[in-house]
Amino acid sequence: CSVESRAQIHEIAHMVKAAGATILRGGAFKPRTSPYSFQGMGEPGLQLLREAADATGLLMVTEVVSPMEVPLVAQYADILQLGTRNMQNYSLLHAVGEAHKPVLLKRGMSSTIEELLMAAEYILSHGNYRVMVCERGIRTFETYTRNTLDINAVPALKQLTHLPVIVDPSHATGKRELVDAASRAAIAAGADGLIIEVHNHPERALSDGAQSLTGEQFAAMVKRLARVAEAVDRRLAVGEPVVA
Amino acid sequence: CSVESRAQIHEIAHMVKAAGATILRGGAFKPRTSPYSFQGMGEPGLQLLREAADATGLLMVTEVVSPMEVPLVAQYADILQLGTRNMQNYSLLHAVGEAHKPVLLKRGMSSTIEELLMAAEYILSHGNYRVMVCERGIRTFETYTRNTLDINAVPALKQLTHLPVIVDPSHATGKRELVDAASRAAIAAGADGLIIEVHNHPERALSDGAQSLTGEQFAAMVKRLARVAEAVDRRLAVGEPVVA
Amino acid sequence: CSVESRAQIHEIAHMVKAAGATILRGGAFKPRTSPYSFQGMGEPGLQLLREAADATGLLMVTEVVSPMEVPLVAQYADILQLGTRNMQNYSLLHAVGEAHKPVLLKRGMSSTIEELLMAAEYILSHGNYRVMVCERGIRTFETYTRNTLDINAVPALKQLTHLPVIVDPSHATGKRELVDAASRAAIAAGADGLIIEVHNHPERALSDGAQSLTGEQFAAMVKRLARVAEAVDRRLAVGEPVVA
Amino acid sequence: CSVESRAQIHEIAHMVKAAGATILRGGAFKPRTSPYSFQGMGEPGLQLLREAADATGLLMVTEVVSPMEVPLVAQYADILQLGTRNMQNYSLLHAVGEAHKPVLLKRGMSSTIEELLMAAEYILSHGNYRVMVCERGIRTFETYTRNTLDINAVPALKQLTHLPVIVDPSHATGKRELVDAASRAAIAAGADGLIIEVHNHPERALSDGAQSLTGEQFAAMVKRLARVAEAVDRRLAVGEPVVA
Repeated sequence: CSVESRAQIHEIAHMVKAAGATILRGGAFKPRTSPYSFQGMGEPGLQLLREAADATGLLMVTEVVSPMEVPLVAQYADILQLGTRNMQNYSLLHAVGEAHKPVLLKRGMSSTIEELLMAAEYILSHGNYRVMVCERGIRTFETYTRNTLDINAVPALKQLTHLPVIVDPSHATGKRELVDAASRAAIAAGADGLIIEVHNHPERALSDGAQSLTGEQFAAMVKRLARVAEAVDRRLAVGEPVVA
Repeated sequence: CSVESRAQIHEIAHMVKAAGATILRGGAFKPRTSPYSFQGMGEPGLQLLREAADATGLLMVTEVVSPMEVPLVAQYADILQLGTRNMQNYSLLHAVGEAHKPVLLKRGMSSTIEELLMAAEYILSHGNYRVMVCERGIRTFETYTRNTLDINAVPALKQLTHLPVIVDPSHATGKRELVDAASRAAIAAGADGLIIEVHNHPERALSDGAQSLTGEQFAAMVKRLARVAEAVDRRLAVGEPVVA
Repeated sequence: CSVESRAQIHEIAHMVKAAGATILRGGAFKPRTSPYSFQGMGEPGLQLLREAADATGLLMVTEVVSPMEVPLVAQYADILQLGTRNMQNYSLLHAVGEAHKPVLLKRGMSSTIEELLMAAEYILSHGNYRVMVCERGIRTFETYTRNTLDINAVPALKQLTHLPVIVDPSHATGKRELVDAASRAAIAAGADGLIIEVHNHPERALSDGAQSLTGEQFAAMVKRLARVAEAVDRRLAVGEPVVA
Repeated sequence: CSVESRAQIHEIAHMVKAAGATILRGGAFKPRTSPYSFQGMGEPGLQLLREAADATGLLMVTEVVSPMEVPLVAQYADILQLGTRNMQNYSLLHAVGEAHKPVLLKRGMSSTIEELLMAAEYILSHGNYRVMVCERGIRTFETYTRNTLDINAVPALKQLTHLPVIVDPSHATGKRELVDAASRAAIAAGADGLIIEVHNHPERALSDGAQSLTGEQFAAMVKRLARVAEAVDRRLAVGEPVVA
């Protein structure tokens, strides 16, 4: 989730590359609930991510949190991520709408499907048509999981929009041991892509450790996923990302 | 959902049998939100369901709504269903706990996974160990779908209990056009069985028409499901139900 | 909440009577989430409640959990309570609809205002017109409080029905330190009555201790409430209950 | 809610002033769910609001939606409002944290009490200590009202923070006919202030008409509120706002 050091990000990049991933995601500017939590490394983090992406041939996606930083982040990243707390941050939607990079728009944790599509429309209405929408779990009364993966939203979105639909099973479950099953469900339901948290040492991660897979777990999962993808006439991209 | 007439229930029984189903579900006592809605046919409905099940070799499942009726329903049904509004109806849990028939326990629409397991425990603690738990969608802020299918609950329940986990994608979506994808997701996530609403004339159904498939849609869906089941090393039962 | 012993119930009855309450509520049949929690004393509990009510001149309200027990409970109680988990238990609604005692119908913890009114309608449609509806907090994403008191429901219900509207701030907050403010809010919003948990030794209560007031706290609260009631042209009943 | 014209805003300013209000709120930059809805008048709107505030001696509060606009808005407004969709917009929290004007921080519609306090902490941690937190209704399963006023949050916040607690019954109910009762409840529960939507012609309002009071309704409500305030030893401020 967050870039912590050069060694860490390079190790992870090679790990996910080896396992078949096509995109590297890391946070340089990290919105955190508490002002006293680790907030990300900023521009040096962007440089490390770019370096690791170039070294492995992966695409790089990272989050933008302020309209002022969009041009800077767009210099480094291949894809701009708009996070769940910012789905209705209209000045940020406007700014990424004017950027020349694809956007990964995460659903607000309590936003309806309709509101997600309206937020995408904000970006599109400023001229940027390369938007992917991402179901990342919604907030419900259930406390066993961190969020509730709204699997219904996947076919609903596929029917309502032509935009690619991505699922983030790591945040949508918050539990490593559920990520595998949730990922298979997402692919079976028609998702166009997945975002999976991987960490070289999940137990030492500064954030989101409980939901991160090890590289080994990720590689094993990818094999199982490939079979489900085939059963719904899709193919897990290896080296051919959804966006470019 | 509800038994409406002999002709209707026989037509549906043959339709689902032909498509590969193993269990026939129909409501004879139907709990409805309004006291002025159609409440089900009562014992004559039970007889019609039994007849249709026998004629096709299907198992029959139907809902119990009152502890007093449990012995009567148990005479006709192969499986007793305990509905979502009754998940914490302790006198009913007690009564089915003393019955000698398997129980399909539906999750309350706002009950947590833990509460569902506790409700199952009520039945088990009275001596009936043949309980299946059923995820049927939870109540959230999202209004595009009737309920939100809590797909996370499937692997969570598989990890927390040895009881079979069933999914009801018809109620969990409330929309016919989402049932197919939701069913594939459920199987991919590890569900042991599905309950699908089928109606010979969904547009004329007295209840739940919007979420019912036609026999043709059901048969097409079963074919797609079989491929997903295979991809997760399961086999769609045809003639071999989960319970017996 | 639950009757634990003769000494306990008599002490509480005198305590609340002294503080100005008009109704004594206690549980003899107690629906609990776990089958292994304390389930209530049954008929001996009913006798103790009746005795304590007679000794103090209070009315007695207690919960019914099974249609079979309604006649028994109706022999002892002045008011039958239908609990939150049973709001859509239609066989129980039917049974209390045929009883000759007033009914306190608690809103399901995830039931809409409309569903609450429909449940009341079930009772009314069987001939029992003495129904009070009770807002007792709904289930939301907020975890700081046990439930979320839906204060909007109070004026909404007053506008939609002529039935008395009762509020249960103890369950709706789950925290002793919020009960006072929530009670004032309920009265200010137009509630016709309150149900407050009081326990002689909250820290030793077998259930719901964290939300129970001591007799002293209750008496102090009643004084503050009386002023708010007056400000909305109501009068706190002392000796004149809402129902009879 | 939104400034529509000079005549409109002056009429409303005089209307609310006459009824006893101390603060004028209007939107010049208006975040809307759809990019095609009316988005507010921008700087000319700010000038009109300032003019109307000066002409009546009211304080002026208006929303900021982008960190870049904070200095501009701070030139005109007495209080900066941070809206519900921006509660976790950290770059905006940072920007208002560096402004020299009091901030009205609205709770996110699905944010917990803890997250609201953390968001306030972001502002405080940048040196601006004049923050008011505002309960404006949360998103729940209930659809009869636009939101659910979390009245428990009022005493909870009063116990957890020294910051003033404001309630917005207009958004929290979404229905004009519930605003009066919800306002009384808020004051009775301990709120330090209220924000009420008033419109000279609610039926012609470009946004939020259904929840706006007429001036006459507002004036009548203020009289009733004054009595409740007195019953909890508070006094409705007339000419003496909470912040300054």
